[in-house]
Amino acid sequence: MAGYGWISFTTDYGTFDGFVAACHGSIARVAPEVRVIDVTHHVPPADVSRGAAVLAQTAPHLPTSVHLAVVDPGVGTARRGVVLTTPNGLLVGPDNGLLIWAAEALGGVESAYQLSNKDWLLGDVSRTFHGRDVFAPAAAWLAAGAAAAEAGPPVDSTTLVRLPDPAVTVGDGWIEAEVLTVDRFGNVQLAAEGSMLTGLGPELLVNGNVRARRGATFADVNAGELLVFADSADRVAIAVNNGRAVVVLSVRPGDVVRIAAR
Amino acid sequence: MAGYGWISFTTDYGTFDGFVAACHGSIARVAPEVRVIDVTHHVPPADVSRGAAVLAQTAPHLPTSVHLAVVDPGVGTARRGVVLTTPNGLLVGPDNGLLIWAAEALGGVESAYQLSNKDWLLGDVSRTFHGRDVFAPAAAWLAAGAAAAEAGPPVDSTTLVRLPDPAVTVGDGWIEAEVLTVDRFGNVQLAAEGSMLTGLGPELLVNGNVRARRGATFADVNAGELLVFADSADRVAIAVNNGRAVVVLSVRPGDVVRIAAR
Amino acid sequence: MAGYGWISFTTDYGTFDGFVAACHGSIARVAPEVRVIDVTHHVPPADVSRGAAVLAQTAPHLPTSVHLAVVDPGVGTARRGVVLTTPNGLLVGPDNGLLIWAAEALGGVESAYQLSNKDWLLGDVSRTFHGRDVFAPAAAWLAAGAAAAEAGPPVDSTTLVRLPDPAVTVGDGWIEAEVLTVDRFGNVQLAAEGSMLTGLGPELLVNGNVRARRGATFADVNAGELLVFADSADRVAIAVNNGRAVVVLSVRPGDVVRIAAR
Repeated sequence: MAGYGWISFTTDYGTFDGFVAACHGSIARVAPEVRVIDVTHHVPPADVSRGAAVLAQTAPHLPTSVHLAVVDPGVGTARRGVVLTTPNGLLVGPDNGLLIWAAEALGGVESAYQLSNKDWLLGDVSRTFHGRDVFAPAAAWLAAGAAAAEAGPPVDSTTLVRLPDPAVTVGDGWIEAEVLTVDRFGNVQLAAEGSMLTGLGPELLVNGNVRARRGATFADVNAGELLVFADSADRVAIAVNNGRAVVVLSVRPGDVVRIAAR
Repeated sequence: MAGYGWISFTTDYGTFDGFVAACHGSIARVAPEVRVIDVTHHVPPADVSRGAAVLAQTAPHLPTSVHLAVVDPGVGTARRGVVLTTPNGLLVGPDNGLLIWAAEALGGVESAYQLSNKDWLLGDVSRTFHGRDVFAPAAAWLAAGAAAAEAGPPVDSTTLVRLPDPAVTVGDGWIEAEVLTVDRFGNVQLAAEGSMLTGLGPELLVNGNVRARRGATFADVNAGELLVFADSADRVAIAVNNGRAVVVLSVRPGDVVRIAAR
Repeated sequence: MAGYGWISFTTDYGTFDGFVAACHGSIARVAPEVRVIDVTHHVPPADVSRGAAVLAQTAPHLPTSVHLAVVDPGVGTARRGVVLTTPNGLLVGPDNGLLIWAAEALGGVESAYQLSNKDWLLGDVSRTFHGRDVFAPAAAWLAAGAAAAEAGPPVDSTTLVRLPDPAVTVGDGWIEAEVLTVDRFGNVQLAAEGSMLTGLGPELLVNGNVRARRGATFADVNAGELLVFADSADRVAIAVNNGRAVVVLSVRPGDVVRIAAR
């Protein structure tokens, strides 16, 4: 098989310890010619749904890759490791919901395999660092051209662990949706798709008492005003031109935000 | 054309979201063989002058490159995107002053073009993420060998947006200069060039009442003492051996510091 | 000589300034085909022993490399720069103890050379940024195939600066060991080797009054309980399943922790 030239890499390891580098090392030892794009290593520790969201929003913009992701509070337990195939690349990581949103963003799960090929392990496998010893080497073998089916026995994809879908409700002239993420600029991204804004009109009210306007980019409102827009991941988002919406709204991931016509 | 083997990349995107990775993806999709050196993605959000300073001080130490920089509070407005050519590489980014100090550090602007080649855009271009959809692909096309003139119509380089030059005043036995940056070690870098220290003598007073000494490296003064020196970017800087000058002086970027003979 | 395809890179430079990128630039200018694995650039400023520990624990998991490390509070003084050879790669950096633990993890120092080859310097060598001007270019020349002996005159390896070994004491039914690091997950890693746990039994007491259990992975204890285990670097470590041991124990690097049978 041809393999893949790229591995993307998403974790909650941070960059203060040598964990990320050790995984890069595992990849380089197995498949030295493959190149790695680091998505982020600052997923909050053990925050599987944040890892799933950032990977799902980034993967479609990368070259066709093996997407390696490790946010793995169940490391060392019986939780499965899996390889998922999609029409646009592979995913490797723990079976805890981390990979599925990205798989759907890449066209959907075509097949799934339980990662259990002992020939792919590196070194004395630790019980607490499967990123280095299990998942990174597997991603490297797959990028080097191994077939996904070599990873281990097939898995019924309906048995893959799923995270609860974030809450999104659409009514007549309003939407309510969970905050998915707050980015570095203080922009608040909701789980609702951009198209759900259609029909709300240009003048809006957020959470009952904060005035906002629809637009397409920050400067469509005056400095300090709230903008509701479809962001670059095609999600409904709230920004403040020249400011931080997260401060104005005082929300965090998981909170539900209501946007209504006024 | 031969193109460039390297793209340098400077933003205010941070590394907690997938924004930087999405741009790496755009580059890899257009020009997979090109390699990227990340300058920093921790420019404070929308701080164009900090981005300009760090790029200007770093670019001369990189291999000849396409320098991609995005600190872009005006994204989605009529602000231009530009490509600048210099004797030592290209620069790509918004026309808001971010690129010019680096262009001068690379030998000066030779020619400028407005970025408007629709064939270079990637995907459905968002109104809020031109790093991914406009600037990174353009940098990749240029690195892959496209001529700068293919980017779009020429721009009169005297019309390029400039940041105000940081304040520097030199008197008889004193200099006053704006703080440009404070680095990780607490060293305070001023806008004044290193050569401006000539003639101040070895014994100095900072801001009227803090004693300091001239030297070349940290250990030229005793632990806890202030050192005034020409730093590795050839700027006047103030350090404390074994300490943090920023704490002793209590200054931040934009403040003016006075150094006088005593 | 064949040289090395990889350079690993460890510093206390942080990622907010352009220091790391300037060093990447030095490497790319000397040896453009070599690839760099960043171990971490978040060693606390001037914390040589933290840098030494993270490098020693990471280097054995990387491909055979030139390991470049710069945590260098003595930059610009008479402290030596050195190149160390081991059976499994080279190390380059200041002679302040930063490299030796990693050298030992790679099989021990075979030979040492004082870095003084003027042909390897890049640009006008600064007195405060030897990472960019001295060490990174040297690592690149070595990776490109230069012999270690070309770096400069041999150094008697018994004269290399050593850090004090962290305190570890083993008694009958107890161990006392210094905290080496606290990782992103709040896990507390001690200097004691994993094998020192043998014979302590399954029920433990940490620091006299905190109950803990031996195990192999986090889920071997209930949520909120303390686990004592041999971590992925084969050190004794203390974790809390679903929590942060560092908060429960209130310790930091350098503190001594006692683990005893109960």
